[in-house]
Amino acid sequence: MTAKPLVGVIGVAEANENERQMAFEVGKLLGAMGLGLVCGGLGGVMQEASRGCQMAGGTVIGILPGGDKEAANDYVTYAIPTNLGHSRNMLIAHAADLLIAIGTGYGTLSEVAIALKLGKKVLSYRSWDVQGVSPCQGLTDIQTALAEFFGDLSTKSLLFKDK
Amino acid sequence: MTAKPLVGVIGVAEANENERQMAFEVGKLLGAMGLGLVCGGLGGVMQEASRGCQMAGGTVIGILPGGDKEAANDYVTYAIPTNLGHSRNMLIAHAADLLIAIGTGYGTLSEVAIALKLGKKVLSYRSWDVQGVSPCQGLTDIQTALAEFFGDLSTKSLLFKDK
Amino acid sequence: MTAKPLVGVIGVAEANENERQMAFEVGKLLGAMGLGLVCGGLGGVMQEASRGCQMAGGTVIGILPGGDKEAANDYVTYAIPTNLGHSRNMLIAHAADLLIAIGTGYGTLSEVAIALKLGKKVLSYRSWDVQGVSPCQGLTDIQTALAEFFGDLSTKSLLFKDK
Amino acid sequence: MTAKPLVGVIGVAEANENERQMAFEVGKLLGAMGLGLVCGGLGGVMQEASRGCQMAGGTVIGILPGGDKEAANDYVTYAIPTNLGHSRNMLIAHAADLLIAIGTGYGTLSEVAIALKLGKKVLSYRSWDVQGVSPCQGLTDIQTALAEFFGDLSTKSLLFKDK
Repeated sequence: MTAKPLVGVIGVAEANENERQMAFEVGKLLGAMGLGLVCGGLGGVMQEASRGCQMAGGTVIGILPGGDKEAANDYVTYAIPTNLGHSRNMLIAHAADLLIAIGTGYGTLSEVAIALKLGKKVLSYRSWDVQGVSPCQGLTDIQTALAEFFGDLSTKSLLFKDK
Repeated sequence: MTAKPLVGVIGVAEANENERQMAFEVGKLLGAMGLGLVCGGLGGVMQEASRGCQMAGGTVIGILPGGDKEAANDYVTYAIPTNLGHSRNMLIAHAADLLIAIGTGYGTLSEVAIALKLGKKVLSYRSWDVQGVSPCQGLTDIQTALAEFFGDLSTKSLLFKDK
Repeated sequence: MTAKPLVGVIGVAEANENERQMAFEVGKLLGAMGLGLVCGGLGGVMQEASRGCQMAGGTVIGILPGGDKEAANDYVTYAIPTNLGHSRNMLIAHAADLLIAIGTGYGTLSEVAIALKLGKKVLSYRSWDVQGVSPCQGLTDIQTALAEFFGDLSTKSLLFKDK
Repeated sequence: MTAKPLVGVIGVAEANENERQMAFEVGKLLGAMGLGLVCGGLGGVMQEASRGCQMAGGTVIGILPGGDKEAANDYVTYAIPTNLGHSRNMLIAHAADLLIAIGTGYGTLSEVAIALKLGKKVLSYRSWDVQGVSPCQGLTDIQTALAEFFGDLSTKSLLFKDK
């Protein structure tokens, strides 16, 4: 298996300014680190993370709750419409190698829960305080956790088919 | 729409004795109240609730994560194998008119989250303390909440096709 | 595993009169034979089969594509809203012990395909001619096939928790 | 919506040599045309199409039936494990802008059916002869159909965020 790593950024469409800014910074960080982003593909936290990742040259996979690609935000590289409604949250938890939760939506909580159930690493910024998540105070904490988890990507890029 | 009401009882297979006893009592209560039970159809909390409901003459619908009916516990009246894995949790949240969470599994948390997202009433017994759930100390609290929510079932039974 | 048997009746909402009549007769037959019906829970073939089954005292499980029970037809005993769109077709193929296809919708074809993939028996009436299905000319063929498949239900009812 | 176009190549793991060769050629063609490939991510037709597409510099998205990325073939760029079993077929039909069916598996038939239900263009090579599909005798027919459908990609690449 040589598929590229994917980091899930999960959060609501109705995000506040602070959550949106953090999502944008996290997206930029992922793109800069050569990590792909998988998210819900819609607005708010999803859109800002997508925008940041694309701006930094990263690839964004948007797994949509509806059946139509048109709903994807403008920064999604590959749109995966599912028409599965909330069950698409489970797909993001499965597709991500590590997840970053921003904010406190119920949909976000369902993704955190299943990610933990699957034994995935979940970083949280001002999100649900569930046993098993790793709280981060800011971008530095997130960057450190990503570096620890994915190791030296210039090396990793030899393992993954990074083009 | 005249479909019969369904109450979801959600909890883990690896439940402790206290959780299993409460699940059994809740199942008996649902059967006695003429309420159908929808659950994950497997062991632990799911099996004890199913056993209690069936014993009281109720109907049990088990929505299974696997693709094979054989995995259903012995007290399921109608087995719905889905082969959807954890995404079947979302179906229970959708199918139930009200949910009762027992214990603190991550899968249970995902069901609580989506049920709240859908605006469903969620009672909890020694389960996740998420904003929006209604904590219950015991069977009496649960019975009171069910009576308030479903009203007088002898009347209700005129509305629902209760045979 | 003692869950009751379920027969899937699959067909489109925009059914013609002949398809609707056959669906109604098949539904009545299932109810009379003590077999539960699982279907998509909407109109046309689904509604007529549900109406016939309920009229004969049978139980109807409607697995809905949307997230709201209100969409179920008036003859569904238990409504299972999924919000899975077309993927709910796969659930009907999994939940049914045997399927009866009426008419030639594309959704029906997807259910026939997965039912055959799962090794299920599929009877067809004026439906898709796919290798593996058992064509039936009318109700008599269907009744014969059901009797062969499920055997003597007065005996079977000892195995299944038939109340 | 500026997400990149995706072509679905659908077929079985137990493919014959002719089907595998066509899948490889189609994959190479997609990569050369700058079209992304979405497939089931496993072996046979899926693996050969992935291998061809990757060899031609294209991106391969593999939507897996299981919950584990490890099952993806070695040529998948981004693995999307779903743990949805056969329901993942529906996701491929939704994610693809156009589908190419190779061979006659039942799972393939379910994807063709839902793709047609969604009004998608479906090309078929030695696959199911369902009303609505466009039969292709070989690679030239497929190339012509792709060019007609997607138009001049050097132009299209201005519309899509092609990097």
